[in-house]
Amino acid sequence: MNGAESLVRTLVAGGVEVCFTNPGTSEMHFVAALDRVEGMRAVLCLFEGGATGAADGYARMAGKPASTLLHLGPGLGNGIANLHNARRARSPIVNIVGEHATYHRAFDAPLTSDIEGLAGPVSAWVRTGMSAKAVAADGADAVVAARTAPGGVATLILPADTAWEEGSGIAPLPAIPERPLASDEAIAHAVAALRSGEPVLLHLGDRAVQGEGRRIAARIAEKTGAKLLAMTSNARIDRGAGTVPIERLPYPVDPAREVLAPYKHVILVGATLPVAFFAYPGKPSALAPPTCDVFALATPEQDQIDALSRLAEAVGAPAEAPLPPLSRPELPGEGRLDQDSIARVLGALIPEGAIVCDESVTTGRNFFPATHAAAPHSWLQLNGGAIGLGIPMATGAAVACPDRKVISLQADGSALYTAQALWTQARERLDVVTLIWSNRSYAILRHELTNVGANPGRKAIDMLTLDDPAIDWVSLSRGYGVEARRVETLAQFVDTLTGALARRGPFLIEVALP
Amino acid sequence: MNGAESLVRTLVAGGVEVCFTNPGTSEMHFVAALDRVEGMRAVLCLFEGGATGAADGYARMAGKPASTLLHLGPGLGNGIANLHNARRARSPIVNIVGEHATYHRAFDAPLTSDIEGLAGPVSAWVRTGMSAKAVAADGADAVVAARTAPGGVATLILPADTAWEEGSGIAPLPAIPERPLASDEAIAHAVAALRSGEPVLLHLGDRAVQGEGRRIAARIAEKTGAKLLAMTSNARIDRGAGTVPIERLPYPVDPAREVLAPYKHVILVGATLPVAFFAYPGKPSALAPPTCDVFALATPEQDQIDALSRLAEAVGAPAEAPLPPLSRPELPGEGRLDQDSIARVLGALIPEGAIVCDESVTTGRNFFPATHAAAPHSWLQLNGGAIGLGIPMATGAAVACPDRKVISLQADGSALYTAQALWTQARERLDVVTLIWSNRSYAILRHELTNVGANPGRKAIDMLTLDDPAIDWVSLSRGYGVEARRVETLAQFVDTLTGALARRGPFLIEVALP
Repeated sequence: MNGAESLVRTLVAGGVEVCFTNPGTSEMHFVAALDRVEGMRAVLCLFEGGATGAADGYARMAGKPASTLLHLGPGLGNGIANLHNARRARSPIVNIVGEHATYHRAFDAPLTSDIEGLAGPVSAWVRTGMSAKAVAADGADAVVAARTAPGGVATLILPADTAWEEGSGIAPLPAIPERPLASDEAIAHAVAALRSGEPVLLHLGDRAVQGEGRRIAARIAEKTGAKLLAMTSNARIDRGAGTVPIERLPYPVDPAREVLAPYKHVILVGATLPVAFFAYPGKPSALAPPTCDVFALATPEQDQIDALSRLAEAVGAPAEAPLPPLSRPELPGEGRLDQDSIARVLGALIPEGAIVCDESVTTGRNFFPATHAAAPHSWLQLNGGAIGLGIPMATGAAVACPDRKVISLQADGSALYTAQALWTQARERLDVVTLIWSNRSYAILRHELTNVGANPGRKAIDMLTLDDPAIDWVSLSRGYGVEARRVETLAQFVDTLTGALARRGPFLIEVALP
Repeated sequence: MNGAESLVRTLVAGGVEVCFTNPGTSEMHFVAALDRVEGMRAVLCLFEGGATGAADGYARMAGKPASTLLHLGPGLGNGIANLHNARRARSPIVNIVGEHATYHRAFDAPLTSDIEGLAGPVSAWVRTGMSAKAVAADGADAVVAARTAPGGVATLILPADTAWEEGSGIAPLPAIPERPLASDEAIAHAVAALRSGEPVLLHLGDRAVQGEGRRIAARIAEKTGAKLLAMTSNARIDRGAGTVPIERLPYPVDPAREVLAPYKHVILVGATLPVAFFAYPGKPSALAPPTCDVFALATPEQDQIDALSRLAEAVGAPAEAPLPPLSRPELPGEGRLDQDSIARVLGALIPEGAIVCDESVTTGRNFFPATHAAAPHSWLQLNGGAIGLGIPMATGAAVACPDRKVISLQADGSALYTAQALWTQARERLDVVTLIWSNRSYAILRHELTNVGANPGRKAIDMLTLDDPAIDWVSLSRGYGVEARRVETLAQFVDTLTGALARRGPFLIEVALP
């Protein structure tokens, strides 16, 4: 078998079952190998950002990597924004980038570029294949690198001749390292803080904010009076009725500082230092009070569940923490179609087992409180701040979980970066309902113009406005083969969403917002 | 004035009159400065690849750089594919990338990444602004770097605090270096080749293939019997009736080798070594015969017009070369709608002064011969092979030349990377007619599967097919606010194109191909 086939077989043996592809000439042998190998589903994307974002969404739900297949440096370039998001979400991805044959690179053909240079900033691991005999082992190393905690983007660059020449056969998968344990000192530090009598925050991220971690953290809180708070953005939170409700650190600087102001100790568990998303003149970058003792119980790389368990035992936490009484919201009967009524509709209608992919940006800042008691579901957010993840992420999540309904909450400005992924939803008959929050502006930037102290005139505000011409999302969606409808009232929204949730397959709702 | 305003005023003073923007929070002070400064037109793009591709198209027609405005590493990432193309076209661009405030970077906020690392592979020059006082001078250096022959991408990374703190005022523009002259040895080498009695090819690129260079080369050919040939892809050729007709080196390897086989000497004038676009098993990378004397009279960096003039004088070329008799094609009356009939329609209908932006890929390989005698026009091609340039390039060319009709020839698979630029055409009321060659496949890759010796099965061929669901280009185009029509016969095509050329403003024609 050639190098490409030995690589594909090695990936399949390593648990990589899906390849999100946007190939070119240099990847044709890899494409042909997909034909000959059972066990690898090839999902065609029209744009590389769709492939990398789908791989991120897949990883968050499957808990293991998919592969991508991108075409040389420019193809990688188109995938970089969503690889950046995947890096911040710590999603495992085996990111395969085609390259000219090893001997062809010196000729500087038009598509030649420094692929390793482009890959470095978004990758935890980068390697260029040197020979067809070695490329299967390279692939095995890539799988291990992607799956090593906390998970990352492993970029394997595949020169065309390493794909078409005679390969090695399947390479064995090296052992995947265990997560290192938190130190005893860190546990002791946390115990001391929790016993100090001073206000303590358990700031949860990564595994610690998901189901089991959050349950243990709630037991610690029940015993000690500590509060729980999730990061502003989280790769995945399994939430809804029967789970521990948790709020997120607000995105804007001033509310975030207010939330953190009372605490003398902030214990990071899988979370990183709370910092402002952007710098603003006259405001600090670090959000916790300067006098606050901020320290890590367990880093994202470490075993957060073990650390929380040891801490729970050390403080004598109860075996269970009672859940606060919360009831599922009722459908609002009447009123305006706005962020608040939408939040209540979501709380009422999210079906059990749904996956919510959230790139709502400004529109969605209040969706969490109204959905704490919704039917159990998973909530996935944009982690790296690179807009254009939502539609691809929903696509990948739907590939990972074909039996779960995916609800894609999508700001209109952000949706325009990677709307091509709608076509992949249609092609693969994925069960995704996309809600476009159509306010026809970069609403976040209108606030930010003021926040940064800029003094905008008409030309500047024009730069943040998308109403001339207005994007017709129904037309756009149908262009990509996905049925769509625009709603302008609350009743229309409830009816259309109810109908879309009751059927299978992709559907898009353009939600007109003021 | 703050750093942003001092930078914008410096750019305007340096001849930069247009900024293709897709800004975020960190760029808000630059956006606000655009309000206060006369002379910089801000053109909003929905996707960064639209901004960078438009800047490329603008530069090719304006002969000077536009600026971009991109949002941190991921925004740059989305622009990389078309910056790669601009690099290969040697288009001058002042590529401005926002960055976190200098003091904020250390906090590793979610959007933080290695921007210089990402910019390097596509830039001739990269600098990160260090202070508001210096950023105007950084901008002046960027203009000079972009405009230094042969032209390139100058990336200026702009930390937010260098924009909002007190700036320096306008910085003076350093002198732009002259192009170096070709050596006397190179001229003598060319003279000897031309006098050898052996077959000689003048392979023209960059400035040498444009109007004046091509006229001088034709005089040399008239005297010496040498042949002229353009590169496969060219940033710009001004052509049509009254100009020297020139063919291009074919894209596929075998026809390209056949074209070059007869020559004993290949003189490169602004052209680079003729090499295969991709490597193929068993085929060479270099396309000229191994025994051929391939050498540069003038590199792309050098003064090609001067070198051709000196060579013309040395060989005693006549003051003018007669043009071969060619007549403008007549409109085909009947027949199939296919690549040949389309070529004849273009030859007949291209209006005088039109700018043709060509990302036709497979469909357009025979458009050149049928348009040699069309009305005078400029022809712009995809240079770097990163598909998704066409619609943005047409957008930028139309901004540069508001009085010239732009005809955008666009393969359907490639159009799907950056179709968002249609919206900018509608917003700016640009005079662009887009022709989508709708064959609903990655046709080039179907050939390439065979060319590389892969043995494709159904799954592989599926990966290259775009008909499930079919993209509805009329719907997609209307979604972005551009009127559109689908044509399925030759008569419909002629009628619709005639109508579209007679009106002003953007229009899209989906051309159904077998």
